[in-house]
Amino acid sequence: MQTQIKFLNEKDRGGVTAPAGFTANGVLCRIKESRKQPDVALIYSEKPCAVAGVFTQNRVKAECVKLTKNHIANGIAQAVIANSGNANACTGEQGYKTAERMAALAGDAVGVSANDVIVCSTGVIGQQLPVKKIESHIKELAGSLSKAGHENARLAIMTTDTQYKEAAASFELGGKTVTIGAMCKGSGMIHINMGTMLAFVTTDCAINSQMLEKALREAVATTFNCVSVDGDTSTNDSLTILANGMAGNAEIVADGNDYEIFESALEQLFKVMAKKIAADGEGASRLVECNVTGAVSDTIARGLAKEVISSNLVKAAMFGRDANWGRILCAMGYSGYEFTQEKTSVFFMSRPGSKRYEAGNGADEFGSDCTTCPNECAGTTGDLQKICVFENGVPLDFDEDLAKKILSEEVLYIAVTLGDGNGRGTAWGCDLTYDYVKINGDYRT
Amino acid sequence: MQTQIKFLNEKDRGGVTAPAGFTANGVLCRIKESRKQPDVALIYSEKPCAVAGVFTQNRVKAECVKLTKNHIANGIAQAVIANSGNANACTGEQGYKTAERMAALAGDAVGVSANDVIVCSTGVIGQQLPVKKIESHIKELAGSLSKAGHENARLAIMTTDTQYKEAAASFELGGKTVTIGAMCKGSGMIHINMGTMLAFVTTDCAINSQMLEKALREAVATTFNCVSVDGDTSTNDSLTILANGMAGNAEIVADGNDYEIFESALEQLFKVMAKKIAADGEGASRLVECNVTGAVSDTIARGLAKEVISSNLVKAAMFGRDANWGRILCAMGYSGYEFTQEKTSVFFMSRPGSKRYEAGNGADEFGSDCTTCPNECAGTTGDLQKICVFENGVPLDFDEDLAKKILSEEVLYIAVTLGDGNGRGTAWGCDLTYDYVKINGDYRT
Repeated sequence: MQTQIKFLNEKDRGGVTAPAGFTANGVLCRIKESRKQPDVALIYSEKPCAVAGVFTQNRVKAECVKLTKNHIANGIAQAVIANSGNANACTGEQGYKTAERMAALAGDAVGVSANDVIVCSTGVIGQQLPVKKIESHIKELAGSLSKAGHENARLAIMTTDTQYKEAAASFELGGKTVTIGAMCKGSGMIHINMGTMLAFVTTDCAINSQMLEKALREAVATTFNCVSVDGDTSTNDSLTILANGMAGNAEIVADGNDYEIFESALEQLFKVMAKKIAADGEGASRLVECNVTGAVSDTIARGLAKEVISSNLVKAAMFGRDANWGRILCAMGYSGYEFTQEKTSVFFMSRPGSKRYEAGNGADEFGSDCTTCPNECAGTTGDLQKICVFENGVPLDFDEDLAKKILSEEVLYIAVTLGDGNGRGTAWGCDLTYDYVKINGDYRT
Repeated sequence: MQTQIKFLNEKDRGGVTAPAGFTANGVLCRIKESRKQPDVALIYSEKPCAVAGVFTQNRVKAECVKLTKNHIANGIAQAVIANSGNANACTGEQGYKTAERMAALAGDAVGVSANDVIVCSTGVIGQQLPVKKIESHIKELAGSLSKAGHENARLAIMTTDTQYKEAAASFELGGKTVTIGAMCKGSGMIHINMGTMLAFVTTDCAINSQMLEKALREAVATTFNCVSVDGDTSTNDSLTILANGMAGNAEIVADGNDYEIFESALEQLFKVMAKKIAADGEGASRLVECNVTGAVSDTIARGLAKEVISSNLVKAAMFGRDANWGRILCAMGYSGYEFTQEKTSVFFMSRPGSKRYEAGNGADEFGSDCTTCPNECAGTTGDLQKICVFENGVPLDFDEDLAKKILSEEVLYIAVTLGDGNGRGTAWGCDLTYDYVKINGDYRT
């Protein structure tokens, strides 16, 4: 079942302040001296929230991650403070104290217990975070919390992101309108199988923390966890969700119809955010979506899709507009997942004039699983250009010029159809470019 | 125990023809139209050989890999035919017949059974190999087999390699001089945990195929399997070893002193070849060696070292001469291996004027485990420049200029010391550069 959701226009009411009761702000503290836009964000809910989070699976965890996991253990939170420019990772005891200080500063400023504050950091690893800079701006930050403040907050968490990333959507639940808002930062050090990048989700849905955590984990599995930019899993990846119940729906405390509606809405919003992150991968010039259908199971389909979009060689080929499908087969081959090569076909597709940053702005403007599955949708896809390069295990002589034309668009679909079952899965990534190397060859300076 | 081995000068007698009874050749067949140097190699032993091989673990295996596994199953082989320019992978039944045809052509030409011929291919995936081009040159290829022919053979297997890669060494075994020779090609699609890249090893040692296979697997574990260029595991990776017994030593048929001597010599030769492959990674400008000491076990140390040199972010930092040690900790953290962060230290080291291509030319000119372990070797390392950036879990304020100077050399050592035990391990990789993207953005054309 897919909940009907309505995406909100971010201009009038978008991002984390879209749900009732949430305000936000962002100010420039110059955590990194050269910074020119806000670098510390605050999100506040006027009522205490149920909270859930997923975090990096890296053994080396940032000090703020350790603190936040402690703070949300009781299922309650009410504010978030987040900074860019310094990850507060590998900073030892002093770093943990810094994270505590950030929680205390934010808590004092908005009148909640420090224990109910989520702390997130992103940026360079291994340098002590100059918390005094936050201290001297905390009044300014908390004093101007507002509905419009999502605009500064979304800027404050950006690092090498070239675009801010936020979305909000509403849907009906038991006669009430429920809203979910989100902002995130991505770009580098993003990979599958983790708690993802820095993402902040707010909702006015009434739901207890156990069911919130369940919904979060389910929605992440097919969205944020299916994004790969560079195969590195950060020390700081954190995704937290706050639910303040102000929509007035009957609190979700168990599985059932209401839970399904909420989870589906959350998943749709996350899918949009996942695409935004992939589209803005460090140095990326293309959003690449890989759809695998006909696998033994959804898990296998997703696993294969992830491996394809994670391959450096596939990514470099997409950058070079090179229909080098052999690398796709090769990546599938080393994924460890089973498939029958003799029943495998590979297609490249795109839409003329597609824009990668717009791919995340609506529900399914681009690439719903249906429109990119060539077997089902031939003839119904309007302007979709497509080419088959490998069919039932046999390489095809294909039109290289058409292939190049298709791969010149900003949003590329790699469709793989298997003959093994009904499993389907999607993953999102980007191309590997000179700029990725440039950005990461000298990040600290 | 480490066998004393003597590396042979490749000018007068190097590579795969160094051992007694082996000849080789390479000719230009233009498998790829634009090719300007030999692209088909032949290696021949005047006596039948014990044979062993390790092959790609990719589920998608090239047709030649399937054939070669069948051909060596009886433990006997006598010749090798190998081509670059076309991988003969994902080419189905026709491709398998092509591999059979290559074996028959080579077998006929040198007078051995097709079943005793090893067939290897490397190059683009998914195009049928134009075997007629080999057919029309097979007499030329086999007719000029010679001791000097290793020089053409080593050129014939190169794809995006910028340097040919070969080595040979001799050692004493039971009063006889035994020689091992090798050539390999590497560059892209090279990653840990596989049968490695295309490598051909010859020896005049008398050893049965069971013990040969055992020695091969042991030697590969700490050498070729500790190299990563780009995280992709090819469809074609093959490493085969032929042993013709002509050194006249008592045949090695069981564990014991003779086996140990042989295995140690093989491992040393492989280590040299592994460095050559890492140094010539696609687009690489630096050879990066990571040494981990003080781990709970050698396996853990090796696993951590591999993860460090596999990280795109670490690799990009090395390209940018950026002492961004946080990325090293981060990579160790997501390796899945245990270590105590609070007892971890990280060093960067290099030698002024070091040349990456020379790192593989001698036994231990560069980076024996001893000389790069800062704890043991301070004061004994002569011209080694070093800097500690993270000490016992605490970030250090370090001299950025010195760090940049150290990281400006061609051969870089990342040394990680743990406080968890006596395990040590080494892995080799390279930096991630603009040229890697360039080479792989348009490989087929």
